[in-house]
Amino acid sequence: MNTPIEHSDEYWMAKALRLAERGLYSTSPNPRVGCVIVKDNRLIGEGWHQQAGGPHAEVHALRMAGDQAQHATAYVTLEPCSHFGRTPPCANALAAAGVARVVGACRDPNPQVGGRGFQHLRDAGIEVTESCLQAQAEALNTGFIQRMRSGLPWVSIKLAQSLDGRTAMASGASQWITGPDARRDVQRLRARSCAVITGASSVLIDNPSMTVRPAETGIEQPEHLWRQPLRVVIDGQQRLSGNEKLFNQSGDILLAVTDPTRVTVQRAAELGQLTLWQSPPTRSGKVDLPALLQFLAAQGHNEVLVESGAHLAAAFVESGLVNELVLYCAPTLLGSSARPLLVLPLESMQQQMRWQWQDIRMIGNDLRLTLRPEQDQPG
Amino acid sequence: MNTPIEHSDEYWMAKALRLAERGLYSTSPNPRVGCVIVKDNRLIGEGWHQQAGGPHAEVHALRMAGDQAQHATAYVTLEPCSHFGRTPPCANALAAAGVARVVGACRDPNPQVGGRGFQHLRDAGIEVTESCLQAQAEALNTGFIQRMRSGLPWVSIKLAQSLDGRTAMASGASQWITGPDARRDVQRLRARSCAVITGASSVLIDNPSMTVRPAETGIEQPEHLWRQPLRVVIDGQQRLSGNEKLFNQSGDILLAVTDPTRVTVQRAAELGQLTLWQSPPTRSGKVDLPALLQFLAAQGHNEVLVESGAHLAAAFVESGLVNELVLYCAPTLLGSSARPLLVLPLESMQQQMRWQWQDIRMIGNDLRLTLRPEQDQPG
Repeated sequence: MNTPIEHSDEYWMAKALRLAERGLYSTSPNPRVGCVIVKDNRLIGEGWHQQAGGPHAEVHALRMAGDQAQHATAYVTLEPCSHFGRTPPCANALAAAGVARVVGACRDPNPQVGGRGFQHLRDAGIEVTESCLQAQAEALNTGFIQRMRSGLPWVSIKLAQSLDGRTAMASGASQWITGPDARRDVQRLRARSCAVITGASSVLIDNPSMTVRPAETGIEQPEHLWRQPLRVVIDGQQRLSGNEKLFNQSGDILLAVTDPTRVTVQRAAELGQLTLWQSPPTRSGKVDLPALLQFLAAQGHNEVLVESGAHLAAAFVESGLVNELVLYCAPTLLGSSARPLLVLPLESMQQQMRWQWQDIRMIGNDLRLTLRPEQDQPG
Repeated sequence: MNTPIEHSDEYWMAKALRLAERGLYSTSPNPRVGCVIVKDNRLIGEGWHQQAGGPHAEVHALRMAGDQAQHATAYVTLEPCSHFGRTPPCANALAAAGVARVVGACRDPNPQVGGRGFQHLRDAGIEVTESCLQAQAEALNTGFIQRMRSGLPWVSIKLAQSLDGRTAMASGASQWITGPDARRDVQRLRARSCAVITGASSVLIDNPSMTVRPAETGIEQPEHLWRQPLRVVIDGQQRLSGNEKLFNQSGDILLAVTDPTRVTVQRAAELGQLTLWQSPPTRSGKVDLPALLQFLAAQGHNEVLVESGAHLAAAFVESGLVNELVLYCAPTLLGSSARPLLVLPLESMQQQMRWQWQDIRMIGNDLRLTLRPEQDQPG
């Protein structure tokens, strides 16, 4: 008989991370978390957090393991909670089940909580190993972590352009620069986002529904896990009438305005799907983007996706609050009369905005470039 | 004793192709060709064509094989010549050496010659196998093949831009958008080209030398194989004075003009490094690009590289004579006041110019995109 290979902690944590990923489109405002329980080099329990209000990953895994959990090792992609929230603390549950060892990938990002869950386990006599595949675990919850640490959501901007950096002809014609695979990929970006932000101009020009169409995403998950991101429309000049398509789709809408008394959108408000958010005054008279993002974070939105025109996208980029640029690039030239990627008047090379490559891949026949702001060199 | 694995024809042809590649920067106007001679599953001779006027690949390989060539198999990446040129025909040499079999990758692209070399071998009783790794062999000599078949050189355009499709600030400032690795890569593009084309505007603005600087290329080859591409400057309005840097660098220059009587460049002409080429008249009064390219092909130029500003590059793209777009993309945003990739005023989506992805790779911290014109669907 072959002796089974003794798997490493990283092996089991990778399995837990794969489970956590299954919650990519459904756990918000909670983080995506996975758990596996292992005994004598065999998996005896596994689980992942599916939805806010539902059981945590550890609870699913402990249920499956049953009595075997005694003296077993639990792998958790995020520090088990030690407080009573919507569910009882998982640290207690692990201790009560007699688990001998817990391996964690990362701490709870809330600085006021982080470490207490692990401490609770240690106090109960459980051996704790931290930071196993930490970077991979954090990458799965960049939005949740950022919201907990900074009070801001993770902001991605999605843009689609030609090889020569153009988004539409001068006439506005742009259907379609990118192909169906790229558009499907954008549906997946939306599906993982807690909120999608656009501007009144885009609504007036393109009349989008801004919803996730599950069948188009190619995502397979149980029916009940689907949720629509909050649709945020920045309408600083109160130009929307309420007759636009997005107001006829079910799902929540946040209308960010400067003067609520001038808002004419009625029906959506009556249906209860519309919330007005009044921006604090700014020097430019426009909506205060940092304040809007802080508000969204306070409402539990981890990841927001900006899908807007060249003016609003540029305003976000200039605000310094963008964490990720997702640029779909079609193999076509639209020429120099066509519309620019961003309306961003810079004058000198010193003003250029440099980014770092994060990911480069083909999506169908288009190229998807993902970049993050270049970090300042430590001085 | 292990029986040695009987290698396939493709195995040996791949070796011959690797040898041919060593001539990437030196064989023009001739094609890059490699040859290996194999007997009893062992390599007994190898060679590659180094320089026009020097021995062909087959001659090198036959010399190395000596008497062993009898009853051996020769792998040649291009059909052996059957005519007396600067060297005696290789088909004769292979037959005289008693080679039993010849495996070829592709035929001589000259339609008036193609097939005669192989026929000559068959007539001499040699077994001939054709089309082994044909696509790979043709890819190594796209310029030579195109020139032989169509009387036009292979035209590549090199451009460098920001993520948002801009090549310089409005002021013209552009040093440096791309990094040192991309600039080194451009040196390699130049080194493999027979001619480099630019416009008078670029010369007046950037004052480039347009030479290959061997130390910067990272290419390792014997000193005597280095050659400078012909520097072609399109100066339709006879604006150059002769004081520009490129005229002070050794190496040939072709000045494409519309009115030779107005040319003021004197010293370079006296030194014998300058040739004037008068464009046939065009309706726009500009230099006739197709005629220029035909002239270059007739002079034996296989691959030409266009390194110009946004106007001339656009004129080439619009001419339909561009075979390859090489686009270096730096991870930066230059904004919407910055200069466009191409001055190419298109009005409708129907006018967009679509391309096919050929290659996508990182060059240092920049992304290099290589594309070829989208082929029309057969009707």
